[in-house]
This record gives sequence, structure tokens and C-alpha cells, in this order.
Amino acid sequence: MRVMGVDPGLTRCGLGAVEGRPGAPLSLVAVGVVRTGADEELGARLVGIEAGIEQWLDDVRPDAVAVERVFSQHNVRTVMGTAQAAGIAVLCAARRGLPVALHTPSEVKAAITGSGTADKKQIGTMVTRLLRLSEMPKPADAADALALAICHVWRGGAQHRLAEAMAKAKTQDRLAEAVAKAKTQGRAASARTTRKDVAL
Amino acid sequence: MRVMGVDPGLTRCGLGAVEGRPGAPLSLVAVGVVRTGADEELGARLVGIEAGIEQWLDDVRPDAVAVERVFSQHNVRTVMGTAQAAGIAVLCAARRGLPVALHTPSEVKAAITGSGTADKKQIGTMVTRLLRLSEMPKPADAADALALAICHVWRGGAQHRLAEAMAKAKTQDRLAEAVAKAKTQGRAASARTTRKDVAL
Repeated sequence: MRVMGVDPGLTRCGLGAVEGRPGAPLSLVAVGVVRTGADEELGARLVGIEAGIEQWLDDVRPDAVAVERVFSQHNVRTVMGTAQAAGIAVLCAARRGLPVALHTPSEVKAAITGSGTADKKQIGTMVTRLLRLSEMPKPADAADALALAICHVWRGGAQHRLAEAMAKAKTQDRLAEAVAKAKTQGRAASARTTRKDVAL
Repeated sequence: MRVMGVDPGLTRCGLGAVEGRPGAPLSLVAVGVVRTGADEELGARLVGIEAGIEQWLDDVRPDAVAVERVFSQHNVRTVMGTAQAAGIAVLCAARRGLPVALHTPSEVKAAITGSGTADKKQIGTMVTRLLRLSEMPKPADAADALALAICHVWRGGAQHRLAEAMAKAKTQDRLAEAVAKAKTQGRAASARTTRKDVAL
């Protein structure tokens, strides 16, 4: 399973892709950052983020995309731009029909380090170790994107199986419902036919 | 000047276009809402919003797009989705090279009603009056989108002239800077040449 992680931001949007599956060693596919200038207009910045993510999706061809879930209570000054960058990442993935997962920072931290309150350095250290890299990916946004991707490989696998199972159950429910409905209509139709027969 | 206003939202994204210029009667071009289901996945919703806005831009062909500026302090529960819908509107406009303006709700209220704290009904009443409509546009999101567009026709004209003047001044500054730099380099080059002549 190849997962692309996105640590959204307007100034630095971290992107990182890993290949792996739960219980097997992970490998690095690509890591980097899409940057836009703080002096650019919002529209130009969003177009730049979209172009960068599109290029990455073309190059990396992930099976799924994991995006950090943005909360309004953090970094009030920059949160709108972060939410918009996250929205564009979700949009780009959804346009291609790729499954998108949103993970909170504490879910990612807990998945990678075992603690939901781990700091940036701890995340970087674990990403470096898990991907067997010679040095820590920089900037922190790039390491965070890899952490999101790793989190998704580990959590996403389970979530994906759960979602599949639920979708299957839903389909079976609908099927059962449709069958029941058809039977009822069948009975109603026979009932009407019977009444009609009687009436004639 | 034809302006398309966007009152961003995931469940209801209000869209409204007006034609006009400051000091002349305004006319309605189009008004409506793009809706996405609360039960849909975020990705599908954002794709739906993008498709709706793209269709509108194709049909309406505005000269500029005005989007409501989203603040993090309001409606914490829905603000992320609102910010993302706004980001997509800005993205769609910027991809086409259209000028995008962000107006705050109080700027819009002040422009349309004279009061920055006007309520929804007052906005609706003034939009109906200014566009000489037979009834108030519904839902409120559609009326708000028209209010944004009207606000931009009135404020945007002045802002546009200001931006143009500032861009012109900046170009002139850069030109003057380049000329000064060229002159300095010219002097440095002559100085070097002189020294070389002496050294030979």
C-alpha cells in the first residue's frame, strides 16, 4: 500500500509518501515541501498548492492520501490558510477517486511514538528510524507528512477493512431490504389481483 | 462590471452574480445555491462545490469574484468546512486569472445597509430593493452572495483603482531602482576599467 501524507500549510505544505503494510518494514517513496510566498495573493498561493499536489499525485501514484485534520482552536492566525490547503489536498485526491483519510495530530503522534503528546523531534526521530533513513527529513513539515503516511498505513489498513466490512454489510442490508420489499409488493400485487378477481 | 459573489459553505454555498458599476443601477445576472449532502464524505463535498462553482463561472463569466472572508472565531463547529469551500471558490477564480476579493461580513453589511451589524432580513430587503426584484432571494445564503457581489461592485471599484495605482507606483519604483542600479554598475565598471588601465 502506497500512502501520500499531507501536512497542510500555505507557506510550507509538507508532502511525504511511504510504501508498506501493517506488520512489515516501511519504505520511503518521496519527501518534500510545496512552498508559496507569504507576499503572494491567496488565490496564487492556492493555485501553487494545487499544482504542487497534482504533480506529486502524478509522480507518486498513491493508493490513498492522508491529510492532517485541522482544528480551529490551534494557531488562530494561520488556521484558515491551513484549512484551505488541507481542503485542496482532499479535493485533489477525491477528484482522482483516491480514498482520503483525515488524522488528528495526536492520532499521528500516538501511532508513531506511542504518545499523543510527543514533540516534533520525537516524531522526526521515529520517522527516521521507521524508514531507516540516514538523517532526519527536514523541514519538520516534511517529517510530519511522512508520519501521517505511516500512521495511515498502520491505522488506515484497519480502518479500510472496517469501512469495507461496513459497506458490505450495508449492501447486504439494502439487498435484504430490497428482497423484503419485492416480496411485500409481490404479496400486495397478488392481493390486488385477488381482490380484482373477486370484483369481476 | 460583472461580479460573482460567493457565500461559502459545504451544505449550502450561496452564489449570486450582478452587473453594475458605482453610481449606476445594478442588475441581477443569476442567483442560486450549490448544495452537498451532510452524509457525503468531505472529498465528495469539495468536488461537488468545485464542479458547481466551475459551472457558474462558465455560465456567468464574471470580471471579478467576491468571497466572504471566513474568521475562525465564528461557528467553530462548521468553520473548517466554510474555510475550505471559500478556498475552493478562490482557487477556481484564481485558476482563470480572475481578480478575487475577500470581504468581511461587516464590510458587506455596511456597504449594503449602512450598518455593519445589520441582520439577515435587512440584507435580504436591501438586496431585493437594489436589484429591483419582485421578491427576496432565498435561501439567505443566496441573498448573502448577491450582497457580496453588490458590495464588491461598490467597494471593489475603488479598491481596484487603488490596487492599480499601487501596482503602477511599484513598477515605477522598480524601474527607478533598476535605472539607479544600472548607473551604479556603469560607474563601477568604468572604475574597474580605469583601475585596469592604470595597472597595465
